[in-house]
Amino acid sequence: MNLRNTALLILTGMLAVSCNQHTKQEKLAAEPTYDVVFAKGERVTNDNFTGRVWLNNLVNADSVNQNAVGSVTFEPGARTKWHSHPAGQIILALDGVGYYQEEGKEKVIVRKGEVVKCPIDVPHWHGASADSAFVQVAITGRENGETVWLKPVTDEEYNQGPK
Amino acid sequence: MNLRNTALLILTGMLAVSCNQHTKQEKLAAEPTYDVVFAKGERVTNDNFTGRVWLNNLVNADSVNQNAVGSVTFEPGARTKWHSHPAGQIILALDGVGYYQEEGKEKVIVRKGEVVKCPIDVPHWHGASADSAFVQVAITGRENGETVWLKPVTDEEYNQGPK
Repeated sequence: MNLRNTALLILTGMLAVSCNQHTKQEKLAAEPTYDVVFAKGERVTNDNFTGRVWLNNLVNADSVNQNAVGSVTFEPGARTKWHSHPAGQIILALDGVGYYQEEGKEKVIVRKGEVVKCPIDVPHWHGASADSAFVQVAITGRENGETVWLKPVTDEEYNQGPK
Repeated sequence: MNLRNTALLILTGMLAVSCNQHTKQEKLAAEPTYDVVFAKGERVTNDNFTGRVWLNNLVNADSVNQNAVGSVTFEPGARTKWHSHPAGQIILALDGVGYYQEEGKEKVIVRKGEVVKCPIDVPHWHGASADSAFVQVAITGRENGETVWLKPVTDEEYNQGPK
């Protein structure tokens, strides 16, 4: 083979390899990044929730500080039962999209970076949206006793209002 | 120019362009991702801190819930003064690397995903590490009054112990 044909062959080969690398690099860069703050914790097995939920107890209430702080991860569609807190609760939305509803009010969407203050003794529920997981940190005062668990959130209740 | 030489020229040109794209793609993919949960808030201008600090008041304490919750961003080297909390405090490390020290104890490093429970009335300080910014959510009970601010953390105190 003469020199020119050899050069042609080599260049074609290099181009083929380079194009393939380029395509692979694009694909990697297109994958979404996901930055978890707190470990997911343990899968919740009690019946206070619908769907798949994980709990990481970050801080337990004690005589020094009556706040319990936990990170909760809800898979899409998962939610708490209706429930209330005798000392209220604060929800920090760390990731994803969630739903929150108080008795007598419309369901609202809660997004990463938003905060919800649940009033004392008002029945409410919260969880992931239908299409997205939801990660929350819940700050719950224990000084007036434990959470009062009520009935499950029906699919009809869950699906009404905003998506 | 004959056909072979033309092909050679075209292929060389394509290779040159492709290599350049490939290099650019690598550079973009190498930039670190940063996923902020809460907005940084306002630059703190009072003298309770050393260095540059931002505060986003997420939840104000009120008669319903006596917890104040804020997101604080410390630039590298920035820290609080020594101070104490009459109802204690909980620090959730959301991002970066920070320092925390209680009076009479060694300074410790606090990393994203870790939690610190500050005891009632114990003087302490916290902030970013020397080389990394630090983002924390602080949960502070206000039922026993306000934070008691003490003296600034000297550079010697800040730099002793782990880096």
